[in-house]
Formats: sequence, C-alpha cells, structure tokens
Amino acid sequence: MTINRKIGNLLNQVHEKKPLIHHITNYVTVNDCANITLGIGASPVMADAVEEAADIAAISSALVLNIGTLNKRTVQSMISAGKSANEKGIPVVLDPVGVGASKFRNDIASLLIDNVKLAVLRGNISEIKFMAGLEAATKGVDASESDMAKADDAGRIAKNLAKKMDCIVAISGETDIISDGNKIVYVKNGHSMLGNLTGTGCMCSSLIGSFCGASPDELFAATAAAMVCMGISGELAFEREGQLGGGSFHVALYDAVSNMNANILERRAKCHEA
Amino acid sequence: MTINRKIGNLLNQVHEKKPLIHHITNYVTVNDCANITLGIGASPVMADAVEEAADIAAISSALVLNIGTLNKRTVQSMISAGKSANEKGIPVVLDPVGVGASKFRNDIASLLIDNVKLAVLRGNISEIKFMAGLEAATKGVDASESDMAKADDAGRIAKNLAKKMDCIVAISGETDIISDGNKIVYVKNGHSMLGNLTGTGCMCSSLIGSFCGASPDELFAATAAAMVCMGISGELAFEREGQLGGGSFHVALYDAVSNMNANILERRAKCHEA
Amino acid sequence: MTINRKIGNLLNQVHEKKPLIHHITNYVTVNDCANITLGIGASPVMADAVEEAADIAAISSALVLNIGTLNKRTVQSMISAGKSANEKGIPVVLDPVGVGASKFRNDIASLLIDNVKLAVLRGNISEIKFMAGLEAATKGVDASESDMAKADDAGRIAKNLAKKMDCIVAISGETDIISDGNKIVYVKNGHSMLGNLTGTGCMCSSLIGSFCGASPDELFAATAAAMVCMGISGELAFEREGQLGGGSFHVALYDAVSNMNANILERRAKCHEA
Repeated sequence: MTINRKIGNLLNQVHEKKPLIHHITNYVTVNDCANITLGIGASPVMADAVEEAADIAAISSALVLNIGTLNKRTVQSMISAGKSANEKGIPVVLDPVGVGASKFRNDIASLLIDNVKLAVLRGNISEIKFMAGLEAATKGVDASESDMAKADDAGRIAKNLAKKMDCIVAISGETDIISDGNKIVYVKNGHSMLGNLTGTGCMCSSLIGSFCGASPDELFAATAAAMVCMGISGELAFEREGQLGGGSFHVALYDAVSNMNANILERRAKCHEA
Repeated sequence: MTINRKIGNLLNQVHEKKPLIHHITNYVTVNDCANITLGIGASPVMADAVEEAADIAAISSALVLNIGTLNKRTVQSMISAGKSANEKGIPVVLDPVGVGASKFRNDIASLLIDNVKLAVLRGNISEIKFMAGLEAATKGVDASESDMAKADDAGRIAKNLAKKMDCIVAISGETDIISDGNKIVYVKNGHSMLGNLTGTGCMCSSLIGSFCGASPDELFAATAAAMVCMGISGELAFEREGQLGGGSFHVALYDAVSNMNANILERRAKCHEA
Repeated sequence: MTINRKIGNLLNQVHEKKPLIHHITNYVTVNDCANITLGIGASPVMADAVEEAADIAAISSALVLNIGTLNKRTVQSMISAGKSANEKGIPVVLDPVGVGASKFRNDIASLLIDNVKLAVLRGNISEIKFMAGLEAATKGVDASESDMAKADDAGRIAKNLAKKMDCIVAISGETDIISDGNKIVYVKNGHSMLGNLTGTGCMCSSLIGSFCGASPDELFAATAAAMVCMGISGELAFEREGQLGGGSFHVALYDAVSNMNANILERRAKCHEA
C-alpha cells in the first residue's frame, strides 16, 4: 500500500489510541505544541525536571525533544528522558531548532544524538544541512534563503542523513521531504503563511510525535502523514480566514487540526514517493 | 443566602477590587492564566524567583501555585511565597497538576502541603484521589477514565479530604464538585470542548484565585462561583464559535470570560448544595 | 523631516531588512513577542542560555531585554548578551517589567543598566518613575493609578531620564511619550482594551526592537514609529472585533500588525513633537 493510502488510517490510529506525547520543548511555542497535540486527538505532557523526565517518558507513547530555548538544566532531562524512551522502545523525535546558530546549540545537538537513538529528526533545510555536516547558513531559527535547496538536492541530503543516522529524516519547506534512508516522500501541501507564524515547525514535530506514538511500527509513513496533516491544515486555515491576517490564520489552523479526518487527509494529500 | 444567590455579587467583588493574583505556575499555560485573570477583571503577576517570591506574595490578594512544569528551582519559590501568604492571611490555591504521574511530583505535592496552609485545592478526579491517599490511575496530566467516579462518590472524596486538610477541595469534571468538609456543591455547567484545550484546569485555578482574592472571607462560595464562571464561559464559547473547532472555541472562551457579568452568572448557574 | 513623515519609511525598512531580533524575555508573553515580531516583518529569536546569549546577540540586529519573569540564571545571560550587543553597536531595548515591586527586581534593573548601555528604555509610568529615582507606587506589573501623571509631567520625566541615561525613554500610557533627552513626541494612538490583554507592553518593546533593528541610526523616530504602530493596531483591532471581547481583540491585534503598511501608519498617526 502506498503512503497516500495509509494516511487516513494513521490519523484514525491517533484518534483511537490517544497516545500520551511527552515533550521537553521550548517555552516560546509550548502552548501551541500542547494545543496541536490535543487538537489531533493525542494527549500532551510537558515535564522537564531531571527528577521525573525518565519516569514520564516511560509512561508515554512518544517523546519530542526540541532545543528552541535550550539550557543546561533541561539538556540533562532530555538525555535522561531519551534513554528511558530508548529502553522502552518508545519513538523519540528531535527538533534541532536553530542548530548552527551557536556553538552551544551545535554541541548539545551532537551530545543528544550521541546519547539518544532517534526515531525521527525534523528540521528546516538549514538545520538538517548542519546536522548532515554540510555547510549551512542558519540565521537565528529560520532557514537561510541560501540554503533553500532544490527539492532533488534536499531529497538526497535527507536520504543520506537518514541512512547514516538510521532514522527518519524530515525537512520542512515549500516541499516537505521525508526519507527513511531508502525511499523519499515529497509533500507539496502547505501555505506560505505557516512561515509567518511562530512555532509551526515545533507544532509539526508535535504532530509527528502524535502519529509516531500511535503507530510506532510505521515511523516513515506516520512522519509523512503528520507533515501532510500540517500542510493541509495550513491550506484550510488560509482558505477560511488567512486573508484576515496572522492572528486569524493561527485560530483557523487550530480549528483545521481539530477537525481533521481521514477523508480530508486522503482527498487533499499531495505526496509522491521516489 | 444560598451559593446561587451569592455568585453574582462575588463576581462584582472581583470587578470592584481588581485583586492582584500572584501565580507561580507552569510555562505551558501561563499566558492563558494571565489573560483569564485579566479577563475576569483581576490583575495577574507571575514571579517565580526565590529572591522575590515572598515579597510579591505579600502584596498580592491571592497566590496560585501550579505544579504543571515543576522543577527544583521553583519549588523553593512556591514554599517561600506560600509561607509569606500564610503569614499575611492571603488565600493560597494549589493546583497539583499531574500528581500521581511521577514520584518527584508526588514528593513535591507532599512537601508543599506540609509547608503551606492551603485555602483551596483544585484538581481533576485522578489528582484529588491521589491527594486523598486513594488509589488513582493518573495518565500524564489528564484524569484517567477509570477514575471518573460517580458524582456522589467524588462528593464524598472531596468532603473527606476537605475535612482532613481543613481547606476547600474542588474537583473539575463533567460535574464540578466543591466541598468545605461540611457542605458539598455540585456544578453542572461546562462543555466537553473544555477538555480539548490545554490549560482549562489551570485557568479555572486562576479564576478561583481571582474570586478568593476578592472575597477572602467567602472561600467556599468564591470557589464555587469561579467554577460556575468557567463552566458558563465554556457553554457560551461553544454556543458562539465552538462548532468551528478548538481555536475558535479558545478565542470565544476568552471573550465570554471578559464579558461575564453577575446577571449571566446567576441566570445560567446550575449548582446545587448537598 | 518630522517624525510623522518618517514613520511609513521606517516600517518599510523593517519589511525590507527583516531584522533578527534577539529576545531574552519572560515566559508569560514570549509567544506574543515572537508572533508580533514576525507579524511586523522581522524575525524573532529567543535564546537565554548564558552559553550562547552573546553569540546570538552578535548576529542579531537588536536585543530586547525584558525582566517580566526574572531569575538569577537569565540575568547573567542578559548581561552577557547586552555587552555583546554593545560591542557590535547593536541597539539594546530594556523593558523593566514590574520594577519597583520587589527589591530583587530593583537590584537587577540597576545591575543591568550599570553593565549594558541602552538604546531604548520602555515602561509604563510607574516603572519609568522608579527608574528615574522618583517615588512610584508599582502594583505588580501594571502602572499604579496614582502614578498616572499628566502628559506634561510624564514628558518632563521622560526627557530628564533620557538625558541622564543618554538613551531614548518611552512611556506607554493613554498618551505614549518618547524622548531622546532633547525633543519629546506625544502619541495619542491606542485603545483602552490593550490594557486588558497581557503582554501588550512586552509586544510594544518587541516592535521597538524591530523598528530600531531595521533603522539603528534613527532610534528616536524608530521608537516613536513602533509605538504609533502598536497604538493604531489596537485601534484597528477594536474597530473590527474588539466589541466581541478580549480573545477576539487579541486575534484582531495580530491581524492588524501583520497587515500594517506605511500608508495606514501615516494616515492614522496621531503624534506631535514638543
């Protein structure tokens, strides 16, 4: 069965299982992450104290690590939660926000992947290029324009890195790209207004956690489904309210996620495998 | 005068006194807590450094402690602020988010109630059962379905715990329950969509802080009034926008709180004492 | 050219340069700060670890320091980022939230201005009076009513403090006041509902950072333009949705910022120099 045909079922799995998704994430977009997780039908828990991070990870269905507002205290919690998730076979999603922008961020990203086996790595093209050891020109937390590769190039980067790290690699962009090191899926859903709202990358990582938590045996398709879901939600949000501006788009984006169903996903998905 | 007849006046007290409500709370829903506090006509202040927590508590009308994203640093601030509030006779509300989900969370909840005299303890049924020393099945930060007791059972739990702790105990759920250890009030206002939005429990605790801060001699009725207010706001939000989805519901919920008045509260309140 | 005639061009500079604005700010309104920064066309980055604060500041176009939820850990980061910005000639905006409310807050505010040369200091009248060494009656984080000076008095306070500190001083209020120690600009844009929403002061500081980051040679006019922009956005938000309540106003405020253009700014600006 192709990914296109699986997407609806993967969403149904989220709705049925209501997986608990443990987040250790930044304080900028954490509320968005919690609401998008609830909106898609999963259950968020945010717990970053080192004293409980491993315990909470162990009762969760997926762990999302996001280094947006990284600090020394929570790095230990991320490693502890990550190791706990690894022991239990719980998928770990890493969102290496802004990697490349400072030595500290780069060192911590390395430390995390040295200590925790990832299921999925998701970032923008600048972040993923940096993680792949390629030259990247990160500017703050947004992708650099000079890094906006052609989809084909980005596909190759994702595939090589996925093979090297033995995990799913997902690149958000005008065309989203997902690879398991073998196949590549290109997703053409989305809307440019997603780039004018803070946290849409973080929210996408939360959706990936939700889909992977519900279908841990289908990490590749689940990651693609989550990205299709984010993209379609952006399209629906713009169609309904986006012309009014960024605030209305934000509200409509939540509405779209909370109303998403298998039928909409499958009808509007624009993804093809290569 | 029954609680039903007092509710409107208790809201008027909030509007007239604009009490300052000190929060030491989680970073997931803190913005929601600030906005709901402003919306109801009180004034929020969030200050969690141990160097100032006692000072800020001392100039406030109520203190809300919420352990959602608990960490070692702010535990000391909570105790310091709580003792300061106790000395001044300022009501302290504790929201033991996710208690039962980890040993750390359980230990800290115990530490807090050993060091700080509570005016109100508010949680979901799983959290309150845990606090009562009963077997509970907390799953993350949401109430476990197996814990969803019948209203009568929950009423007994709240009453016994309120007597034991000598404070108001409030349980949020399809029927909210408030007890002072003697009487029990059942509140049937609310809407199921409140459960699909992060932070509605936290926001309810902020409203309790606001109502108790304005009427510290009426803690039982003030707590009930705050829960009625939250429930009616959820109903109004759903009636106006809720069908559109979670984002629109969230916006309409704020609108409802910021437009709430004594007349709406008294006309729509569904609470009865037992 | 008067400030009125420059405002549109200053906004165009933000749109063209998309300056990166580094924030070390509170966790209550940080999401609002990020979204308003994106909304006006700049790019936010929030990074508060001492290990990277200086590095991130060095690649930014402006630095916004906000002490809303001050704690010991981030004070060091603020100083480190501030010194880095000073070395590179990057403008630093300080928002001394709640100064006057605790000794800790007062001490840290002093420490910051002793260590970091400010480009702009923005606060409400209570905060600015405190910074000026005048008697102030701060109540939490909102301006005290007894401090609501006449515009003329506030103008004198801003001018004297600006001269003393050799920076722009901006006071938010019914009439906003901006002084460079020589001239004073009075801005009469705005709407009272801005006071019922958390973070509008913080958002205003983010806009100041955005405008100053795009036009570092025009700090005085850029600060005035940012405050005009905030005020007009509040007016537009109220006109479109504000009657519905605080939630709808919040959404419409974002929309107004994200749709702002030079023409609207210049047509609606109500500012005069003295």
